[in-house]
Amino acid sequence: MMGVLSERLKNLRRLTRASLVSGIYGLYAVIDSDCLKGRNRLETTSQVLPGGVKLVQLRDKFTPKKRLYELAIAVKKLCVENEAIFIINDHMDIALAIDADGLHLGQDDIPVKIARRLLPVDKLIGCSVTTAPEAKQAKDDGADYLACGAIYPTGTKTDCPVVGLDALGEIKRAVSLPLVAIGGINIENVAEVFAAGADSAAVVSALVLTRSPALAAKEMLQRIEVCHEQT
Amino acid sequence: MMGVLSERLKNLRRLTRASLVSGIYGLYAVIDSDCLKGRNRLETTSQVLPGGVKLVQLRDKFTPKKRLYELAIAVKKLCVENEAIFIINDHMDIALAIDADGLHLGQDDIPVKIARRLLPVDKLIGCSVTTAPEAKQAKDDGADYLACGAIYPTGTKTDCPVVGLDALGEIKRAVSLPLVAIGGINIENVAEVFAAGADSAAVVSALVLTRSPALAAKEMLQRIEVCHEQT
Repeated sequence: MMGVLSERLKNLRRLTRASLVSGIYGLYAVIDSDCLKGRNRLETTSQVLPGGVKLVQLRDKFTPKKRLYELAIAVKKLCVENEAIFIINDHMDIALAIDADGLHLGQDDIPVKIARRLLPVDKLIGCSVTTAPEAKQAKDDGADYLACGAIYPTGTKTDCPVVGLDALGEIKRAVSLPLVAIGGINIENVAEVFAAGADSAAVVSALVLTRSPALAAKEMLQRIEVCHEQT
Repeated sequence: MMGVLSERLKNLRRLTRASLVSGIYGLYAVIDSDCLKGRNRLETTSQVLPGGVKLVQLRDKFTPKKRLYELAIAVKKLCVENEAIFIINDHMDIALAIDADGLHLGQDDIPVKIARRLLPVDKLIGCSVTTAPEAKQAKDDGADYLACGAIYPTGTKTDCPVVGLDALGEIKRAVSLPLVAIGGINIENVAEVFAAGADSAAVVSALVLTRSPALAAKEMLQRIEVCHEQT
């Protein structure tokens, strides 16, 4: 009996999270408080989603938790209305509190292994990596997808070293998880990022600091589609 | 059947958390990164505990989570060895990750109601309040104890207004939960804090910035004992 049950539970786990994992594809919009330079985050999210963005990550290291909790509830509502996945960066407490679809963890955040144990089984966990060994470790610890960057120099995270396309390709070959490229990606270079092995491109400034985030998203998605047709 | 079961669960909840609640009594040591002025937090904790401190709270709003997680594991180990309760300030994710005894929340942190739902039932939740209505709300939301401050001016939390002994007394009369007084408390004024209704005194600078934190704790505990004998 136990064998049947555990087999069923395993399938359930695979199915529910699998549908989210399949969303790690195309464009990955990061709403970063540092990068927005005073722009309203909720408004920016509402501008990005109509452009076809199907995944939003909220990244904020500084806002007091209560305000971040309230903002996250509002951003999640927008994502649900637009059938987009909503991921919280760093704060597992906020992810749990608002029942986000997933949690993204950097190498300086709580360990992936711990989050995997504490989050409900149907939640996505992403992990930022810069080397193949880090990527393997993240997979072993239970990550559902990886993010690699900075691919290009960027003004968003100035403390983040540029690892380039070579690291991206190396990680893609080493670990079979969906791979998000991040850092300095824009409409001009997005094609080479996909050519180097990315499954998704995380975009911060090139999306949110434009005059029309929706239009920027649309153009970026069209460019990505062309990349996929060519491969 | 359900009635019996839910009654049992209720008793279980009351019993397990009650033993922790009874620890909110006497001295409440706060290890605050801002206040320590570069002193090692683990070392400071190990100096405070031999003085008879039976409750330690780790407060840190800035250290990256992975480092805080590792520090919290080490501080918890010291607390377990010294039979002291260990409470994390603000970060429910860290509290969950290291299985702390409790979580302390300010008015700017995630809501008490949410933490009550997400933390295991045997965990303490404390809440900082400055008025009787806030105290009543915290109790209704599921807080196990309250903290009121700043009682006196303090260099530790400069953004925290002084509410004084009157607010402490008012909260004590309004809500029947253990009450911790915090802010500028030292050996000279601790007696009047207990006389005003505090069940416990949270001490930061007066403990950790002395030459011998253990001796400071011991003297403070003796003074508190005298207060209790006199009431």
